[in-house]
Amino acid sequence: MQKMSSEISMSLDGFITDPKASVGSPLEGNDPGRLHDWRFDAKTETDIAIVAELYASTGAVLMGKRMFDVGFEPWGDPPPFGMPVFVVTHEAREPLPMQGGTTYTFVTDGIEDALERTRAAAGDKNVGIWGGADIMRQYLKAGLLDEMQIHLIPVLLGGGIRLFEDFDPEGIELRRASSIETPGATHLRFEVVK
Amino acid sequence: MQKMSSEISMSLDGFITDPKASVGSPLEGNDPGRLHDWRFDAKTETDIAIVAELYASTGAVLMGKRMFDVGFEPWGDPPPFGMPVFVVTHEAREPLPMQGGTTYTFVTDGIEDALERTRAAAGDKNVGIWGGADIMRQYLKAGLLDEMQIHLIPVLLGGGIRLFEDFDPEGIELRRASSIETPGATHLRFEVVK
Repeated sequence: MQKMSSEISMSLDGFITDPKASVGSPLEGNDPGRLHDWRFDAKTETDIAIVAELYASTGAVLMGKRMFDVGFEPWGDPPPFGMPVFVVTHEAREPLPMQGGTTYTFVTDGIEDALERTRAAAGDKNVGIWGGADIMRQYLKAGLLDEMQIHLIPVLLGGGIRLFEDFDPEGIELRRASSIETPGATHLRFEVVK
Repeated sequence: MQKMSSEISMSLDGFITDPKASVGSPLEGNDPGRLHDWRFDAKTETDIAIVAELYASTGAVLMGKRMFDVGFEPWGDPPPFGMPVFVVTHEAREPLPMQGGTTYTFVTDGIEDALERTRAAAGDKNVGIWGGADIMRQYLKAGLLDEMQIHLIPVLLGGGIRLFEDFDPEGIELRRASSIETPGATHLRFEVVK
């Protein structure tokens, strides 16, 4: 069954970006790397398998405009998605086909419409929300998220963008579905109880 | 070797008390129980073993004044410590012996002096900081904490007292020492790298 599944790395003190990201222009995704070492420099076989499973199970990605703006240049061409990517935004814009199977499509009719379009593109695979924090909270609050993956990183950042900031969790119940330990992260998976 | 070890339950969104605790008078320890189900109603053999190991390895407890004020009445007599308890406070007060091995001693000469006195009382066992958030942060920041145990609870509270709030982690490195899963908590243990 198709699920809508979010995925993000979070420091022990609750941040998904480094402190600089909260100052001035949005810098989501531009942290100095400590949150993402488990994916790159410090990866183990288990970490590699977790990322591989994520890509294999996801048919299309949904993201916020801020994350797109920050990520677009560093992701390059081909971007590291290899599947359709839908960007929730207020500005209409033509789809942007990239190499390697990624097309960025800009959706301006709100989160529910964006989800419908991403679902259709995902086929029988999952819809992935791979950040940022704000779009994850919106879908969680709207009761549209089925599953949250949080990679909890044993680091304190002291500032940045919090995953859960001013978030009213009323009516939202989580059930921990699995937990996998690697040196760089505690990979937690939560089911959102409907 | 004697260690100084903190221990606290924290929600996935980073709170150690329920939202009501941030309003009006301090209510630390007075949450509705979802953070502490793993210790009481929902406990498993593994949870019981974790608490038993904590008590067996701890020789004396150090706490902040606010936690003492809130906890004193519900803890009752005998309190659930069974060992010396040192309370960091600004008000001098006579020691308060209780039943069952707990004596509350009030220490007014700052956190370092409080630690020295608690160390002496703990003998060759550990000094335990079992809350609240503020005193834990003070000892962590001062480089005096050897180990942090955080019971991460799969619940979102949306408000309350944050464990890491306005905390500058500069110079503090953590290494995850162990992680144990139970249905009610992910029991994480971090070594503070010196």
